[in-house]
Amino acid sequence: MTETRQAVKSIEWREDHVRIIDQTFLPSRTVYCDIRDIGQMWDAIKKLKVRGAPAIGIAAAYAFYLGIRDVRDISYPGFRIEADRIAEYLASSRPTAVNLKWALDRILVTIHALKDKPIEEIKAKVLEVAKTIHQEDIRTCKQIGLNGQELVPKKANILTHCNTGGLATGQYGTALSMIFHAHFAGKKINVWVDETRPLLQGARLTAWELNEAEVPFKLVIDSASGHLMKSGLVDLVVVGTDRVAANGDTANKIGTYNLSVLAKAHGIPFYVALPLSTIDLNLEHGDLIPIEERDGDEITHFGSTRMAPKKIQTFNPAFDVTPAENITAFITEKGIIRPPFKENLRKLFE
Amino acid sequence: MTETRQAVKSIEWREDHVRIIDQTFLPSRTVYCDIRDIGQMWDAIKKLKVRGAPAIGIAAAYAFYLGIRDVRDISYPGFRIEADRIAEYLASSRPTAVNLKWALDRILVTIHALKDKPIEEIKAKVLEVAKTIHQEDIRTCKQIGLNGQELVPKKANILTHCNTGGLATGQYGTALSMIFHAHFAGKKINVWVDETRPLLQGARLTAWELNEAEVPFKLVIDSASGHLMKSGLVDLVVVGTDRVAANGDTANKIGTYNLSVLAKAHGIPFYVALPLSTIDLNLEHGDLIPIEERDGDEITHFGSTRMAPKKIQTFNPAFDVTPAENITAFITEKGIIRPPFKENLRKLFE
Repeated sequence: MTETRQAVKSIEWREDHVRIIDQTFLPSRTVYCDIRDIGQMWDAIKKLKVRGAPAIGIAAAYAFYLGIRDVRDISYPGFRIEADRIAEYLASSRPTAVNLKWALDRILVTIHALKDKPIEEIKAKVLEVAKTIHQEDIRTCKQIGLNGQELVPKKANILTHCNTGGLATGQYGTALSMIFHAHFAGKKINVWVDETRPLLQGARLTAWELNEAEVPFKLVIDSASGHLMKSGLVDLVVVGTDRVAANGDTANKIGTYNLSVLAKAHGIPFYVALPLSTIDLNLEHGDLIPIEERDGDEITHFGSTRMAPKKIQTFNPAFDVTPAENITAFITEKGIIRPPFKENLRKLFE
Repeated sequence: MTETRQAVKSIEWREDHVRIIDQTFLPSRTVYCDIRDIGQMWDAIKKLKVRGAPAIGIAAAYAFYLGIRDVRDISYPGFRIEADRIAEYLASSRPTAVNLKWALDRILVTIHALKDKPIEEIKAKVLEVAKTIHQEDIRTCKQIGLNGQELVPKKANILTHCNTGGLATGQYGTALSMIFHAHFAGKKINVWVDETRPLLQGARLTAWELNEAEVPFKLVIDSASGHLMKSGLVDLVVVGTDRVAANGDTANKIGTYNLSVLAKAHGIPFYVALPLSTIDLNLEHGDLIPIEERDGDEITHFGSTRMAPKKIQTFNPAFDVTPAENITAFITEKGIIRPPFKENLRKLFE
């Protein structure tokens, strides 16, 4: 019931380099990877060694510093050209991750503001901003967890989907932060971990994080959720999100919508945990959120092993959209947001 | 649009033994397995080499013969004790499927009726009954398909779960028989094949059968069903069943209940296709149906590859129960049965 064992550090600054957990080896091996140059980090992001939108933002910020650290004997205009080149290069690793661009833009603004300072001072400031982004994310995730855990009964069965933990963020996570903090608060919880097909982020990553933190959980297939709810074995559902529209419609890992319909049918609270940076007020509603369709091999193969007949057709949407009316509340670093979502989400930014 | 390519024979009597397709090797290899004694068949049922409620009934009937064939130099009372022991042993292989018990009971009744006949004559009669059960199942499945296909619009997207085809029955299947016969009738159908975790009977077996029969289909993960329905891409859902209670509550592969809730929420017809032998009038309602819980390795491993951390807890129910009120109609060899199910199911047996 202490925090001693939960401190998964997916990413860490170590004096002169970045250390990440290479998530592609989890859960069979915990492999740390020391990243000493920008090319190495580009590769790590591209190959999902580091994943989860907030974690990617942090990784890119540190990588920015690694990139400009080695730029020497240069005046500001040349330095600025280098910085723009570095930002563009890093942004190309995962073009869809919004936090990546947000982090890079924040550093470019800093560099521009310091244009009259010595280059070495600018470099030092870039590292400082990267560390700030990292620390802010940890604080945000912690606050999401503290706010969210108040919604958890003293004894509760909690169902979650995909991975929303310390591996996907600076620390603690979003939905998983709520679960960790309920556990730290001494609540008797059991977590139903959806394995989350096709890429098994639940089985591989969430199960690993909860296991490390000694939070009681049981791994289930995604299809078991209805049976669990009908049997009275789910007190609440909590998930993360990739993007929330202005009206509260929520895009998240495929299968989230199913959970929301089932929770509603069983009168079970359905929560979405997220930092404010995930809310996109420019999008009116969820139908406008583009749904990425991924390669069918994710369904037909496990590793190099084929599970289905050759040359068949597949349909593999990576996300679905849960309409606002299926959501009980949003859990943010600024508190619990309840309906009407359109008004109450907008108020957060006023 | 012909029937020439659909004749999968999951089980076949060959002079003095049973030949099954070992379904655990599909779809990568079509391996036939010759079964010559009762222990081998118990193992084949337990390990899902042969699976699907009707196919298990047929397999158990042949296995009954293999079991008593070797009983020699015995009077009727001793023979009867052996027969009861064999029935009990075979029934222990899979607890949820009622067809298994139905087939065994039918043979026990036959044996009892012939108590004054020579033992060798009784044995021959048991084999004859097993063959009859097999042939009846093929006729029944064909009729289910013919009855069911009338419910399919001329152009339709059909979602199905698990494997309910020729591999799960004597031939054609139940839910898949409806799909095959809609296809034979020239209807333009597309089938959404749920992969059906954890054992992937959809990806491995249904995809294989539809591919062999050249029926258009797309493989999806189980969690995509809600997104498909919400997008207007599902016109009807059809599934099989392992046991139907007297009130219409229906046990089937885990995840079926989820589909029924989602179909109801979207106003999509939800059909259950089955032979009458799957209806258990002795069970008042679905809460009384025993739900088999299977080994957690089915979730944590694919083949010998571990997908989750070591020594974690799992919950792996193989079935769930769909309440009668979520079911639009039952499709049987005696026609389409609509609510009120309690009355209309009972009438089938009058």
